[in-house]
Amino acid sequence: MRILGIDPGTQYLGAGIVEREGSRVRHVAHALLTPKDFDTLPDKLAYLFDGLTEIIEAHRPEVASIETVFHGKNAHSAIVLAHARGVALLAAARADLPVFEYAPAQVKRAVGASGSAAKEVVTRLVCSILALETVERADCADALAVALCHLNHAAPLVRPSVGYRIVRRDIG
Amino acid sequence: MRILGIDPGTQYLGAGIVEREGSRVRHVAHALLTPKDFDTLPDKLAYLFDGLTEIIEAHRPEVASIETVFHGKNAHSAIVLAHARGVALLAAARADLPVFEYAPAQVKRAVGASGSAAKEVVTRLVCSILALETVERADCADALAVALCHLNHAAPLVRPSVGYRIVRRDIG
Repeated sequence: MRILGIDPGTQYLGAGIVEREGSRVRHVAHALLTPKDFDTLPDKLAYLFDGLTEIIEAHRPEVASIETVFHGKNAHSAIVLAHARGVALLAAARADLPVFEYAPAQVKRAVGASGSAAKEVVTRLVCSILALETVERADCADALAVALCHLNHAAPLVRPSVGYRIVRRDIG
Repeated sequence: MRILGIDPGTQYLGAGIVEREGSRVRHVAHALLTPKDFDTLPDKLAYLFDGLTEIIEAHRPEVASIETVFHGKNAHSAIVLAHARGVALLAAARADLPVFEYAPAQVKRAVGASGSAAKEVVTRLVCSILALETVERADCADALAVALCHLNHAAPLVRPSVGYRIVRRDIG
C-alpha cells in the first residue's frame, strides 16, 4: 500500500509518500510546496492544488492521510490553514483517493513520540524510521508522519509495547 | 461590470451574479449548491468546485466577491466553512477572477441593513433591490448581497444619506 501524507499550510505544505514492502516501510518521496511565494490567497491555493495534483500523478498513492485541524489558541491561524486543507482534500478527491484523518497527537504517537512532542523530536523519529539523513523542513517530516500513521493503522508496524492505539476516522 | 458573489458553506453554497447597466443594477442569475447531499468532506468540496466552475463558465463574471470568515463563538464551524471557502477561491483563481473580500457587517450595510441585521431582513432588502419575488434560501440572498457590496464599492449605488463606507481589501 502506498500512502500520501499531507501537512497543509498557506506558508509551506509538506507532502510525503511511504509504502509498505513486505514487513518493511519504505520512503518513496517527499516534497515541500512554498505557497508563501505567492501574494494572494487564491494564487497560493491554485499553486497548492497544482503541486499536489502533480505529486499524486507522479507517485500514484492509493490513499491520502491528513491531520485534523487543531485550533487550540489561535482560531484565525486554523481558519487560514483550513483553506489550504480544503484544496488538499479536493486534490485527493479529484484523484479518487480515499482520505483518512488523524489527530495531531495520534500522528506523533504513531512514530513513537509522545502526543505533545516537539517538532524536532518528530522529525528525528521520522528520519530514523525511513532511513533519511534529514528533511528540508518539519512540514515534510509531519507529512511523512501522518502517512506512517495511516500505514500503522492499516497494519501496525510499531511494537505493541509502545502502548497506543490508532483510531481511524473517515472525514465526514 | 459583472460580479459573482459567493456565500460558501459545506451544507449550502449560495452564488449570485449581478451587473451594472448604466446607472441601474441588474440580477443576472443565482444558484444554490447543496454539498449536504454528499457524505464526505472531499466529495462535498469536489461538488462545490465543479458547481462554481460551471456557474462561472455559464455567466462569465469579471470579479468575485466573498465574505471574510467570521469565527465569533464557534471556531469549529468557521474551520469547516473555510474548507469550502478555500475551494471557492480556487475556482475563482482558476477562472482568473480577481477576488475581493468584505466583512459580514459591510455586506449587510451595503444593502441598506444594519450591520447586525437578521438574515430575513437582508433577504428582503436584496430581493427589493434586484426586483426578485423571493430566493430559495438566505444563502442565495447573502451571495447576491456580497456581489452588490462589491458593485457598490466600485461605484456607490446607495444614496450617501445611508452613511457608510466600503473598505476594499484584496485577499492577502
